[in-house]
Amino acid sequence: MTTRDDPDFSPLRLDGEVVHILDQTRLPAEEIWIECRDPEPVADAIRRLAVRGAPAIGVAAAYGLALGAHAWGEDEASLERADALLRATRPTAVNLRWALDQGRRSWLERLEAGEPVAPALFAWAADLHRRDVEINRRMGEHGARLFASGDRVLTHCNAGALATGGYGTALGVVRAAYAAGALSMVWVDETRPLLQGARLTAWELGQLAIPYRLVTDSSAGALMSRDLVDRIVVGADRIAANGDVANKIGTYTLAVLAQRHGVPFYVAAPRSTLDPDTATGADIPIEERAPGEITAVGGAALAPAGADAANFAFDVTPHDLVTAIITEVGVLEPPFDESIARAIALGGSGH
Amino acid sequence: MTTRDDPDFSPLRLDGEVVHILDQTRLPAEEIWIECRDPEPVADAIRRLAVRGAPAIGVAAAYGLALGAHAWGEDEASLERADALLRATRPTAVNLRWALDQGRRSWLERLEAGEPVAPALFAWAADLHRRDVEINRRMGEHGARLFASGDRVLTHCNAGALATGGYGTALGVVRAAYAAGALSMVWVDETRPLLQGARLTAWELGQLAIPYRLVTDSSAGALMSRDLVDRIVVGADRIAANGDVANKIGTYTLAVLAQRHGVPFYVAAPRSTLDPDTATGADIPIEERAPGEITAVGGAALAPAGADAANFAFDVTPHDLVTAIITEVGVLEPPFDESIARAIALGGSGH
Repeated sequence: MTTRDDPDFSPLRLDGEVVHILDQTRLPAEEIWIECRDPEPVADAIRRLAVRGAPAIGVAAAYGLALGAHAWGEDEASLERADALLRATRPTAVNLRWALDQGRRSWLERLEAGEPVAPALFAWAADLHRRDVEINRRMGEHGARLFASGDRVLTHCNAGALATGGYGTALGVVRAAYAAGALSMVWVDETRPLLQGARLTAWELGQLAIPYRLVTDSSAGALMSRDLVDRIVVGADRIAANGDVANKIGTYTLAVLAQRHGVPFYVAAPRSTLDPDTATGADIPIEERAPGEITAVGGAALAPAGADAANFAFDVTPHDLVTAIITEVGVLEPPFDESIARAIALGGSGH
Repeated sequence: MTTRDDPDFSPLRLDGEVVHILDQTRLPAEEIWIECRDPEPVADAIRRLAVRGAPAIGVAAAYGLALGAHAWGEDEASLERADALLRATRPTAVNLRWALDQGRRSWLERLEAGEPVAPALFAWAADLHRRDVEINRRMGEHGARLFASGDRVLTHCNAGALATGGYGTALGVVRAAYAAGALSMVWVDETRPLLQGARLTAWELGQLAIPYRLVTDSSAGALMSRDLVDRIVVGADRIAANGDVANKIGTYTLAVLAQRHGVPFYVAAPRSTLDPDTATGADIPIEERAPGEITAVGGAALAPAGADAANFAFDVTPHDLVTAIITEVGVLEPPFDESIARAIALGGSGH
């Protein structure tokens, strides 16, 4: 499994009526695929971040729902059970809710029409997966045009093929910009506590042979002070109607530093991440995860026994710090309330 | 060894003509003391951060020089050898240079006067050590007056007893403020890559029974957005004549966030950290350490094999982001070029 050998690499794979999910908690050391024959292992994989990244969570939830119809039965009780299980896994990414809302409608329509549910849901989930990759490629094309030759870009967390159906959002833009000759290297934030930058983004960039240097999350300010960063591009877990962006904790800090140093700050996200039902960032629920993710790494204690830690998984970047939002329908610019409303009104793949 | 049992706990100890240095790379898991009978193990301990923190490095270098006179001989060649060895260990902390300059003068004066060098240098180093603790206690008294009841303070890295001759600089201020009833809890940045916050500051605060919560370095922005931080206090490795502050990487980012959120940003440092010979932060040499400190923790790989990393140990916070500098002679306020010059002109313990 290499993205270099396979440019269409995806962390999810449908094989007949079995869904295989790459266990990203084991990367880069080991490549373990989780076999899912019903919704339980899918929900478990989402919960413990074996699959993570807003778009990938959406695709996983879609497959999970299809597995529910297949393994648990096509009745409404099975739908409710599978839906509730998957919906409760993680609160911040809106793509999860968006995929489950779509899947529910499809399930209920089939049921009312007296048609088989499971095959239709597998087909719908696979189509959603395929479209996610297409969307990311379009996002990459739009985003690459923002870059200039020799640019050094900084990214946070992992918004690559691993975080999506394939190709990546923020890292898709990086791939497209690099392919267009408009990028010299990538600064990769290691992204504590779970090190998605060090473990996943570094791995993907290595596979793609795109030059990068890993840094600690507190290095960005020093890099910008030394004029070593030309652009920042990150993904998003949810974007409110006014353009406020929920993303991996640390994103807000990067945006504040970018403003001070005049560095453009881009968010790359599919339209399914835009949430017209959330007015502002203040309305986005922020997941707080277990302190153990901070106090230990790979079983090794980093802090004294009994140390308490606060582990907010996301933060909110106010829209006035965002230069542009890169979507599959083009680059959205301020005022974001208007450009987001227009993008949503286009209908189609997302809303 | 607990700071709770022993409020005068120090990470360095002189016993006859042997210097014992606590190996902080092993904390909090193990308490190992390094026996130093000549300057080599002292230089090694400084280089690999077994002893770290600008004031502690100064004290260690002073003891190292005394060990040189004792173990290598009192001639000028031994002085040059010991001085060169110790001076080359780390480039950023000015206290190292300051202690060695003092020690050199003392050594040469004795030599010219035909008096024994080693006993005088041991006495001088022990006095410098004792005065460092006194200085920190005075700094704590001055700093505590800046706090208000119920304050939640955020600190970065470790500027506690472990980073000094004893008591601590930034953490000395925290101790004094807590003792005065003006502090409810401490947010502790874990401080990647070497986790001095998670390993050392959390350990010290636990020993002192001061409430704290550990956070990742990229959490400060989210905490300030939620109005959970009332003050920030950090130490310093060098302060330029204009008030620019070199400190552990990540400090600059905290100062930028503090300005945005109207949170007072304090630097606690003895006068020996003020460097009149360095005009601005741009003139401070910034140590770049090995990439392996980022790509692995405790021998466990965090990144793909062969991953490249940039590991700047310090950053520079421009003086306009600093609210006040807390020293043993009082709280310095802007304009810092003037208040720093006045503090240095007082003479005495430091300059």
